[in-house]
Amino acid sequence: MQLKSKLTGIESGSVLVVMLNYLDAAEMGIHSTDRVKVSFNNREAICVVDISKTWVGKGSIGLYKEVEEALSIKTGDPANVSPAEAPRSLEFITKKMNGARLNKQEMFTIVKDTVDRKLSDIELTAFVSSLHFNGLSMDETVALSASMAETGKTLGIKGKMILDKHSLGGVPGDKTTMLVVPIIAAAGYKIPKTSSRAITSPAGTADRVECLCPVTLSVDEILRTVEKTNGCLAWGGAVDLAPADDMFIQVEYPLSIDPLLLPSVMSKKKAAGSTHVVIDMPTGRGSKLKTIGEAQSLAKNFIELGKNMGIIVNCVLTFGEQPIGYGVGPALEAREALSTISNISSSPDLVEKAVSVAGVLLEMAGEKNGKDLAYKLLKSGSAERKLRQIIGEQGGDSKIKPSDIEVGSHVAEIKSKTSGTIWWIANHDIVKISREAGTPKDRGAGVLFRKKIGDTVKNGEVIMEVYAEDDRKLHNAIRLAESLNPVGVYAKMKDRMFIEKVPDGENHKKFFVLER
Amino acid sequence: MQLKSKLTGIESGSVLVVMLNYLDAAEMGIHSTDRVKVSFNNREAICVVDISKTWVGKGSIGLYKEVEEALSIKTGDPANVSPAEAPRSLEFITKKMNGARLNKQEMFTIVKDTVDRKLSDIELTAFVSSLHFNGLSMDETVALSASMAETGKTLGIKGKMILDKHSLGGVPGDKTTMLVVPIIAAAGYKIPKTSSRAITSPAGTADRVECLCPVTLSVDEILRTVEKTNGCLAWGGAVDLAPADDMFIQVEYPLSIDPLLLPSVMSKKKAAGSTHVVIDMPTGRGSKLKTIGEAQSLAKNFIELGKNMGIIVNCVLTFGEQPIGYGVGPALEAREALSTISNISSSPDLVEKAVSVAGVLLEMAGEKNGKDLAYKLLKSGSAERKLRQIIGEQGGDSKIKPSDIEVGSHVAEIKSKTSGTIWWIANHDIVKISREAGTPKDRGAGVLFRKKIGDTVKNGEVIMEVYAEDDRKLHNAIRLAESLNPVGVYAKMKDRMFIEKVPDGENHKKFFVLER
Repeated sequence: MQLKSKLTGIESGSVLVVMLNYLDAAEMGIHSTDRVKVSFNNREAICVVDISKTWVGKGSIGLYKEVEEALSIKTGDPANVSPAEAPRSLEFITKKMNGARLNKQEMFTIVKDTVDRKLSDIELTAFVSSLHFNGLSMDETVALSASMAETGKTLGIKGKMILDKHSLGGVPGDKTTMLVVPIIAAAGYKIPKTSSRAITSPAGTADRVECLCPVTLSVDEILRTVEKTNGCLAWGGAVDLAPADDMFIQVEYPLSIDPLLLPSVMSKKKAAGSTHVVIDMPTGRGSKLKTIGEAQSLAKNFIELGKNMGIIVNCVLTFGEQPIGYGVGPALEAREALSTISNISSSPDLVEKAVSVAGVLLEMAGEKNGKDLAYKLLKSGSAERKLRQIIGEQGGDSKIKPSDIEVGSHVAEIKSKTSGTIWWIANHDIVKISREAGTPKDRGAGVLFRKKIGDTVKNGEVIMEVYAEDDRKLHNAIRLAESLNPVGVYAKMKDRMFIEKVPDGENHKKFFVLER
Repeated sequence: MQLKSKLTGIESGSVLVVMLNYLDAAEMGIHSTDRVKVSFNNREAICVVDISKTWVGKGSIGLYKEVEEALSIKTGDPANVSPAEAPRSLEFITKKMNGARLNKQEMFTIVKDTVDRKLSDIELTAFVSSLHFNGLSMDETVALSASMAETGKTLGIKGKMILDKHSLGGVPGDKTTMLVVPIIAAAGYKIPKTSSRAITSPAGTADRVECLCPVTLSVDEILRTVEKTNGCLAWGGAVDLAPADDMFIQVEYPLSIDPLLLPSVMSKKKAAGSTHVVIDMPTGRGSKLKTIGEAQSLAKNFIELGKNMGIIVNCVLTFGEQPIGYGVGPALEAREALSTISNISSSPDLVEKAVSVAGVLLEMAGEKNGKDLAYKLLKSGSAERKLRQIIGEQGGDSKIKPSDIEVGSHVAEIKSKTSGTIWWIANHDIVKISREAGTPKDRGAGVLFRKKIGDTVKNGEVIMEVYAEDDRKLHNAIRLAESLNPVGVYAKMKDRMFIEKVPDGENHKKFFVLER
């Protein structure tokens, strides 16, 4: 059927979509969500059909931006439209929905069609849901991870050993990466680190680093930075490694499900060319992994998946029941990271975590006494010099001082209403308060702790400060803090960051890890 | 945030959608699929966010038709936009995804939000998928069915006893309803029958009846027709009973899943006010229900669901391994139904099925020897007079003769290539051939059998004719028929129990056992 083109000018944002008038659709026996082949001037596109009653009249076809570009077509041009088959991957999606296992080729077809934007939201959701409900075998996980890596760019860093670290996240204030990358790079190993921005947290590593220097680097800029400094601290969103991941996340996000956790992490590492990866698993109440048992079982999966993908993986379970260090929010965290690496101030748990994680990675690379080496590189100023070199290479001011980083000018104190010891800090409440104060968008907003778990406080003593960039947000954050109960003051505890390394510790010290 | 409206003029077709520029979205901390409240002039709408990079500039907001109408807003008008919570039902959807049971209120909230177009494709797919994967308890099925009925129109026919029939379908040529409704109405019982059009079959009952009279009736027209004649044969799509069903089907259709079968059928019956329903379950290879055991188990579910909804349900398992009667395709079937009810021609299996189904329904209503009564009403001409009365009332020619119904003028014969007995007819192949010939859009297209299962044929004797409205389609249909093997003719069925030994048979003897 020949139809007259009518351009919407609008990006559909996902799959290629055309709109048919309901009469034309009926004549072709086509329903909403069916496929049609649209061709013009020797170009053709397979598109998903939307049915229109008013905007597209009989004899016309509405084309979204992506279709317009695929066909180089203008309003009024004649488009040839005929029914087309649904993409092959739909068959494999329904196969998975019905409980079958998919082989490598089937998995690859689904991922390829996802990246090529051939699947509708309904079909993508059905795939992600089927993984949520039916689970993934190790073979499927390997196939999915490899397919996700193969269908995007690769970094192509030269060198036999490429190190990396990844955190499963979930703990506010975790600026560990900003110390680990310079330590590893200072030790002479390559670590091309890409990080994400905050979605539901107060700050992602990319947000933190952006307070020091630009993070939106191209692949070439990453290669040049790593070539010169051994490391980088770039925003992953700019380089499009394993792009299928972002499309799956679009579906997972509104549903609060995460069946692709393992392929999501490991496909990006594969695309980055990593050979040795340490995975930080914050564990305990208030973090994503509630128990050591859960974390260990996930750790084993990561290690096995790595083995199948040719990547050596070690996992580190870390204490995740309170914020790391004192600052929460992009600028407050950047300040703390810079002043800790510069040995100006001390955040003992941050240092302990950074040298523990870096130490494991250094030992994976063949060093002995990794933690000691990491600590030496930090204390000697080597790590600071390396960070400044990276900052300069990424286009920032390599002489930046912590006080140069601007934080919110509207500040209020939150005081203890009793005397005693801080026994717990509720991560989720700290996240809520920080976001109410303006993070991650307001870089200077956030929370700065004066006391942490195990510290004693007197009645009326300041536990934390809230920072904001305007008064209204500060007011809202304070009011929220008062309605919540973010800090528990009762008796006494020690600080203890490192729980165990997998695969090492068999005798689990289940040190005050509570089930929620 | 105040943004300048920019109208798309386009119906999004489902949930309310607005487009934000990525910079404004980032400033509000909003991601794709998040909700925003958009207000203008004391009106407000909760909308799902789509992120735009080009079509909507910073400071503007793109509004689809449904939002434009909800707010009575024009291009250039200032819209106030603020982050909003996701609808409550999303919480219940994730609860169901995680394997929990939903109570009546939770189920109702999901259905209400579906009908109010508050849920995105992703969220609706997640719900339907969760029913597919986790199943529904009887309590959930009752709650879902009742909610689907309550969130739409009801017919409100007067009378203590409202009869209805429903077929699970799947067998081509099934024009039984066109006989059952007049028989029941002629017996003095009310039967306000609404039917669907074909989606993947050669004809739906609405398509068949439309060859005799209009079927697009309003609720008032249905009420008037039933008032005067006791029955009607209307298209369900025009009256919007249980509208949530159509929205769920939008998701089920591309995925080829049907977890809402029971609520889909029973919610419409509830909305129609039915008190006694007979459900026809075509059973056997080539139909939806492959075995009698499967059909019995589904039948028990229907009966129990009915009990919980205050509807008396009986189920009838019918032979579904070949087309019903001789004609397949809207006009060919309308002709056959009219000439059978007029006692002009005889289609023994059609008559047998119609009086059996009608008989069960009559007995449910309190009659004795229902099948005999049904047969009498058919043979005496009462049913024919009733059908003609309904045709007239719906706006058709009550004097219509079978030969008045136009069938395709392009006809070809398909002949047997051997002598013997017809042992099987492959329903799916008949559907494919009919659709290739032009059904359901070309009303005169289809297949007309001369022989059916059990009939003997000679080499070269005509088994069926293919009808089409143009030569090209006829040619394609014939070519397809030749490449398939739609009818099995063998000299004699010998005692042949042994099919094959596994793992032995490389040369599968596909004698008589059809894969579906």
